[in-house]
Amino acid sequence: MAKVAVVYHSGYGHTQRVAEFVAKGAGADLVTIDAEGNLTDAQWATLDAADAIIMGSPTYMGMASWQFKKFADATSKKWFTSAWKDKVAGGFTCSASMSGDKLSTLQYFITLSMQQAMIWVGQPAMPGADINRIGSNSGVMAQCGPNDPASAIPQGDLDTAQAYGKRIAEVASKLKG
Amino acid sequence: MAKVAVVYHSGYGHTQRVAEFVAKGAGADLVTIDAEGNLTDAQWATLDAADAIIMGSPTYMGMASWQFKKFADATSKKWFTSAWKDKVAGGFTCSASMSGDKLSTLQYFITLSMQQAMIWVGQPAMPGADINRIGSNSGVMAQCGPNDPASAIPQGDLDTAQAYGKRIAEVASKLKG
Amino acid sequence: MAKVAVVYHSGYGHTQRVAEFVAKGAGADLVTIDAEGNLTDAQWATLDAADAIIMGSPTYMGMASWQFKKFADATSKKWFTSAWKDKVAGGFTCSASMSGDKLSTLQYFITLSMQQAMIWVGQPAMPGADINRIGSNSGVMAQCGPNDPASAIPQGDLDTAQAYGKRIAEVASKLKG
Amino acid sequence: MAKVAVVYHSGYGHTQRVAEFVAKGAGADLVTIDAEGNLTDAQWATLDAADAIIMGSPTYMGMASWQFKKFADATSKKWFTSAWKDKVAGGFTCSASMSGDKLSTLQYFITLSMQQAMIWVGQPAMPGADINRIGSNSGVMAQCGPNDPASAIPQGDLDTAQAYGKRIAEVASKLKG
Repeated sequence: MAKVAVVYHSGYGHTQRVAEFVAKGAGADLVTIDAEGNLTDAQWATLDAADAIIMGSPTYMGMASWQFKKFADATSKKWFTSAWKDKVAGGFTCSASMSGDKLSTLQYFITLSMQQAMIWVGQPAMPGADINRIGSNSGVMAQCGPNDPASAIPQGDLDTAQAYGKRIAEVASKLKG
Repeated sequence: MAKVAVVYHSGYGHTQRVAEFVAKGAGADLVTIDAEGNLTDAQWATLDAADAIIMGSPTYMGMASWQFKKFADATSKKWFTSAWKDKVAGGFTCSASMSGDKLSTLQYFITLSMQQAMIWVGQPAMPGADINRIGSNSGVMAQCGPNDPASAIPQGDLDTAQAYGKRIAEVASKLKG
Repeated sequence: MAKVAVVYHSGYGHTQRVAEFVAKGAGADLVTIDAEGNLTDAQWATLDAADAIIMGSPTYMGMASWQFKKFADATSKKWFTSAWKDKVAGGFTCSASMSGDKLSTLQYFITLSMQQAMIWVGQPAMPGADINRIGSNSGVMAQCGPNDPASAIPQGDLDTAQAYGKRIAEVASKLKG
Repeated sequence: MAKVAVVYHSGYGHTQRVAEFVAKGAGADLVTIDAEGNLTDAQWATLDAADAIIMGSPTYMGMASWQFKKFADATSKKWFTSAWKDKVAGGFTCSASMSGDKLSTLQYFITLSMQQAMIWVGQPAMPGADINRIGSNSGVMAQCGPNDPASAIPQGDLDTAQAYGKRIAEVASKLKG
């Protein structure tokens, strides 16, 4: 099986909860970007060793958080050496509104992955009442109210996240051959 | 007061219903793109004479409909002569999912407006239970189920559309001086 | 080897020239969208049978041409049945400016591919003087002056297109197993 | 006349040079985001008092720098109180490639401005050999080679930036009435 890593930043635990379900589906290691936007050397090594990297961030002010962006800027070292070329990529985001510029965050994950010469795998499920209830295919969108705890994220969003993790692992395994 | 025109394509009447509320708020003329993506000379004249143009389309397959795009391609004549420079621009879209790539359609309306040197005014209301329930500021997003008639669009979405039309008319009036 | 199809619209022959080099690199069939945005049944069958579909269009008024969008809207039939799920996807665009909203067209190709549950492969080459001279990784960007014939497209852009076709075919072959 | 502020982050001085020309054209105050993504209280006050805010950042890894994003995230305080509603907004970016995902950065500036209920004014000049040589209307794109100093940015890009500043000031003045 392919090795999958989920690299994410979470401000208040919501995105972390989604990350956990993605990781569960993918059999992935969780790589948590800290409150200053940094990773340890061991965490970078986990990403370097992965066949697939799934990115996660809240959508804050119309885009991934600055901590995620600090991580993204630090991946320029990987870009210089094409170190992440051919890895599979995917992404997810969480915010308080149903739409709320979440697509902007997913589009950015794609743009970043393309610069890294990675291969993007979206969320394949059709829209429905529970699975993919928000209607997103570029990646996974999760949502819960602005004052709600992470436990309030609907189960359908978490199931979507878990199935997405599985999807990524399967594509990465196929590409690994 | 500023003259406002709402130019839109509607496949099954949903976007038309939103257009009617935008137009009501703006005191605007409705300019309907036909099923072949065409406008009459009189309709083009209405757009040319407007101080503000608000664009509307369903989101089909991740973007404005081809009929809207055919209209957009035909505006290249306006671009060559900077005919629409300084007009105020805005936009709205409707689709069956909550998110469903509606942001992609609004982003395109903005990109088109920028090429025309227009001035973009978004949807200013904060997210809420009724007004701006989907959480969109780039323009107005409306939604109703895939098998529902236009009458099923929630009143909050229509109220958001109407208030948006008013907002556009006010900014256009200020700019007119 | 994987079967690859290049589906494109070209207004004045520029995008067609790029399409030919992509197809050469991929060993692909060319599927030409006609001036009314239509394909024949045989052309649809070619796309259905392909392991990878590479999309091409000029960037007109900030986005793929309306003829390409008419094709995209018609792919809703494939979406309803998930007929194109797991196919590899890629894209290219050509316009008169260096940047000129070409990224907007490539972003749309990605959004469409994600709705179809396809797997997106970008242009992996680093920016350089000839190969990837414009600096695009989401797909291939080609450019030549507004009054220049297709023969004026720089060889570096065409070489980038050809290498991209090869890249797509290789990833599709790996996924085919 | 309207008060204009240019808020920008620059990593190596290139974006700063563009910012200086934008500011010159607009008669604007320069507000420099520091290397940690922070502003002083006095700098925030300058932004609060401005009729127009023009945003600038390099494009790093497909998007505005993390320092700019940290600033953007901090503007959530302004959003909560609609403090920047009705201000005019604009933006510019600089990177080493001709295209190089600069549109992604400008799109983000727009998305952020829309959340703040600001009014977006793009770069109105047609593409040309010097002015708007890269072909951007969503805002200003500037470019110089990856190893070149800021002094290597072509004069046409700087002239475009200066004219853009003037444009923003004029629209803001009109809206101020």
